[in-house]
Amino acid sequence: MNRTAIEPKKRGVNVSGPLPAEELRRINAYWRAANYLSVGQIYLLGNPLLREPLTLQDVKPRLLGHWGTTPGLNFIYAHLNRVIKARDLNMIYIIGPGHGGPGIVANCYLEGTYSEVYPDISEDAEGMRKLFRQFSFPGGIPSHVAPETPGSIHEGGELGYALSHAFGAAFDNPDLIVACVVGDGEAETGPLAASWHSNKFLNPAHDGAVLPILHLNGYKIANPTLLSRISHEELDALFKGYGYKPYFVEGSDPEPMHQAMAATMNKVSAEIESIQKKARANGVTKRPLWPMIIMRTPKGWTGPKEVDGKKTEGHWRSHQVPFSELAAKPSHVKLLEDWMKSYKPEELFDENGALRSELAELAPSGVRRMGANPHANGGILLKDLKMPDFRDYQIEVSQPGEVVAESIRLMGGFMRDVMKCNMAERNFRIVGPDETASNRLGAVFEVTSRAWVADTLPEDDHLAPDGRVMEILSEHASLRHRPLLAKPQLHQCDCRRKTTAVAVARHGCRDQTLHGRNRNFGMGQQ
Amino acid sequence: MNRTAIEPKKRGVNVSGPLPAEELRRINAYWRAANYLSVGQIYLLGNPLLREPLTLQDVKPRLLGHWGTTPGLNFIYAHLNRVIKARDLNMIYIIGPGHGGPGIVANCYLEGTYSEVYPDISEDAEGMRKLFRQFSFPGGIPSHVAPETPGSIHEGGELGYALSHAFGAAFDNPDLIVACVVGDGEAETGPLAASWHSNKFLNPAHDGAVLPILHLNGYKIANPTLLSRISHEELDALFKGYGYKPYFVEGSDPEPMHQAMAATMNKVSAEIESIQKKARANGVTKRPLWPMIIMRTPKGWTGPKEVDGKKTEGHWRSHQVPFSELAAKPSHVKLLEDWMKSYKPEELFDENGALRSELAELAPSGVRRMGANPHANGGILLKDLKMPDFRDYQIEVSQPGEVVAESIRLMGGFMRDVMKCNMAERNFRIVGPDETASNRLGAVFEVTSRAWVADTLPEDDHLAPDGRVMEILSEHASLRHRPLLAKPQLHQCDCRRKTTAVAVARHGCRDQTLHGRNRNFGMGQQ
Repeated sequence: MNRTAIEPKKRGVNVSGPLPAEELRRINAYWRAANYLSVGQIYLLGNPLLREPLTLQDVKPRLLGHWGTTPGLNFIYAHLNRVIKARDLNMIYIIGPGHGGPGIVANCYLEGTYSEVYPDISEDAEGMRKLFRQFSFPGGIPSHVAPETPGSIHEGGELGYALSHAFGAAFDNPDLIVACVVGDGEAETGPLAASWHSNKFLNPAHDGAVLPILHLNGYKIANPTLLSRISHEELDALFKGYGYKPYFVEGSDPEPMHQAMAATMNKVSAEIESIQKKARANGVTKRPLWPMIIMRTPKGWTGPKEVDGKKTEGHWRSHQVPFSELAAKPSHVKLLEDWMKSYKPEELFDENGALRSELAELAPSGVRRMGANPHANGGILLKDLKMPDFRDYQIEVSQPGEVVAESIRLMGGFMRDVMKCNMAERNFRIVGPDETASNRLGAVFEVTSRAWVADTLPEDDHLAPDGRVMEILSEHASLRHRPLLAKPQLHQCDCRRKTTAVAVARHGCRDQTLHGRNRNFGMGQQ
Repeated sequence: MNRTAIEPKKRGVNVSGPLPAEELRRINAYWRAANYLSVGQIYLLGNPLLREPLTLQDVKPRLLGHWGTTPGLNFIYAHLNRVIKARDLNMIYIIGPGHGGPGIVANCYLEGTYSEVYPDISEDAEGMRKLFRQFSFPGGIPSHVAPETPGSIHEGGELGYALSHAFGAAFDNPDLIVACVVGDGEAETGPLAASWHSNKFLNPAHDGAVLPILHLNGYKIANPTLLSRISHEELDALFKGYGYKPYFVEGSDPEPMHQAMAATMNKVSAEIESIQKKARANGVTKRPLWPMIIMRTPKGWTGPKEVDGKKTEGHWRSHQVPFSELAAKPSHVKLLEDWMKSYKPEELFDENGALRSELAELAPSGVRRMGANPHANGGILLKDLKMPDFRDYQIEVSQPGEVVAESIRLMGGFMRDVMKCNMAERNFRIVGPDETASNRLGAVFEVTSRAWVADTLPEDDHLAPDGRVMEILSEHASLRHRPLLAKPQLHQCDCRRKTTAVAVARHGCRDQTLHGRNRNFGMGQQ
């Protein structure tokens, strides 16, 4: 079972690739900037640009935040930015490893959305100082992706739901691509393991796309991960078995890795476009083989190779912070300074502390920035739901025992009409674990079918690629697939019944709204 | 996406096979007997052998129990019996489709364990009448596998845990094979989807084996199942990806199916033996490729082909009962009579109503019967746990604020000593979601390692095939892996500390004990 080399095989990684030397230099610099800002958030209270020698007073007394996953998340963010710009994509980013918060905050800051939403975190040295200080600090922001993080619709916390949320976000949003990072820790959870099969419910004609990116950084808190310790052949077979076309991007040397990732992003986005074009031109005749990416990089990539003589980069010791004890070990202060300076901040930020314009222009602009995409922004795209009057479904009972009826069956008729009134808008769906009919809501099948893009047989009953009832026998997965479609508001129903409000369809995919802290930012709403 | 044929391809199914004609005839008759008794339990109040014309008065007024999964479970039971006898195997049977209860009760009745435990359910016509009547009937037994079902350690109910329970039962029981049927509905749940990876924790030298049998009968309550509607290639890849060697047994024609299943059972049990022999002779150097079976048979196999003009066998309409409305539709009474008579009860049971001896002798005898295996019997194999005195771990605090200590770290030292005292007995394990060290119980790694049979790297820390700490980042899966090993009793610890009882290791795999209804049967205990 012993592997001979620590370094993952560099499958498909080659120094040549689609990036010209200058673009390669700049995308790597952008990534270094995100990594720099991530480390700064985890460790620093002041001295953000390291223009003074680093001292213990500049360092937070208690260190929080997870470094291990962060450089990988930053690497992907930089490459998604590139492909969004190159192909004018409408994309949001869901990260399962929610504690990679510093990376997402860093990227929002680099692309400008962070300062737009929080003007006091300005794009200069003083803003950077505040950015660092606020992170996981009293009165500041949480260490994980949170409702206040621009562009986020998935908080993390309980692992397992990243991919379900990604599919939920893609349903009925045909132009949207949801890039979704699944950590190899999260991949061990039940809900996540089951939700790979969500591709059997995604309609390439009317839904958007999900681009899963399995990030194998090899370790959980104190253990290797299962998927990082099976053979390439098994890993490849597993994802083919789940119905994907897996692309591997594996290595640790930044230059060939940038080339490999850029080439892969080009390929997968072209494939997504081709799948959708075909389905939208010819109808959905066959479940498509959606691409996905398996990225294997060292845990804590670009962090300290060793700390106190122990392997740290590429090891679970990088999972949270690679070293703490800065008060007890003065050498750790130097280690931190050397680490942060290895990103060469002076090449990344100008004399005012702002990102240099040659790097800033790598980010998409306006609502194409993943931090500013309206799909990930407090529901400004929600459509009002047209509602029949529930009173029209009542049963007259003039004396006890006169009528035999099932309340849930009546509810089925009501749901059928909600479905019917909102069919054209595509903003109402029913999701559940294979109980719609057995729970007596079967009347909905008078107007729609079950969503189904897997194989069918002639005797099948109400299965269709554009069905609006989605059933998977997993409470853990199905109940997280709720798409972000409808707003329960007073509205006039097509069938001219009296209007009323019933919250049967809620903006559910957005767990963060449960915390009541989500904001609309930069969109003129409050 | 449309499949042209309803009938699954008969991959590998051939009329020739290891069963001589006479054995084939008898094993098929045994299966018919189990099916007959299953239908009888679901439908009948009286007239058990159908020696009188069937009337509405013989039929239960309310029908419960799940027929759809049952003939498949019975088919497997018959073939497990065969291979247990042929190879003298020590085997228990866990079924995920817990509502296939009538099948398991039927088989326990056929093999004799049921009447041993419940003498009033005797092996004659009157016993059969009571067997039928008690099923899901006031004052009788539940419709699913329950604590009182001989040989059961897994109740079903919330789907998802069959395979975790199977692995839990196999840990540290080197001679045991746990056959575990996973329904294709249950296979969609998160916990089940994740628990296929449990093979990375099973040590072929010191643990028993798990034989997973994925039963594709194609349908949930009112939907096809995902795994039954992907290509053979994807299905094969998926299970290779999970690290198994899948064997397919697919078809609906009983004779070739018996041959195929018998051949497959021979093969997989020989492979299990060979894996274990090798590991026990040479040590565990490589994760073995454990065999598993994918059995595709029609839902409600051998039941009515059509009911009221609608396809029923091989369709979700067979999921629960294929037809009810017997009071309203007299033709349904006839349909039931014809269906039950199609099993030819007169060939199966003698004039007293007992199973004919030429069939009875197909079952294993004594504790080799799956209903009587001590591993599935109320804990009679539990070993007492040797416990140190927790008072020896206390910290003296003579005045407030004098000592700084972490209670959980102290608990880690205690756990280490429990581990140490019981190491030779192999009856104490720690399972959890990758938090042993981060929850400050790391002292246990002074005496053991993490269980790990996946790939390793030179820098790994405390991973070993015989490690006794099992960590998988899934609460849904890991917390169900608790093996059935230890009994918390007063005992003298090796290290001569005072004895006491602490319930740190409980017989947890057996959910049924939570209901407080499990019995020891036929073993002289109460």
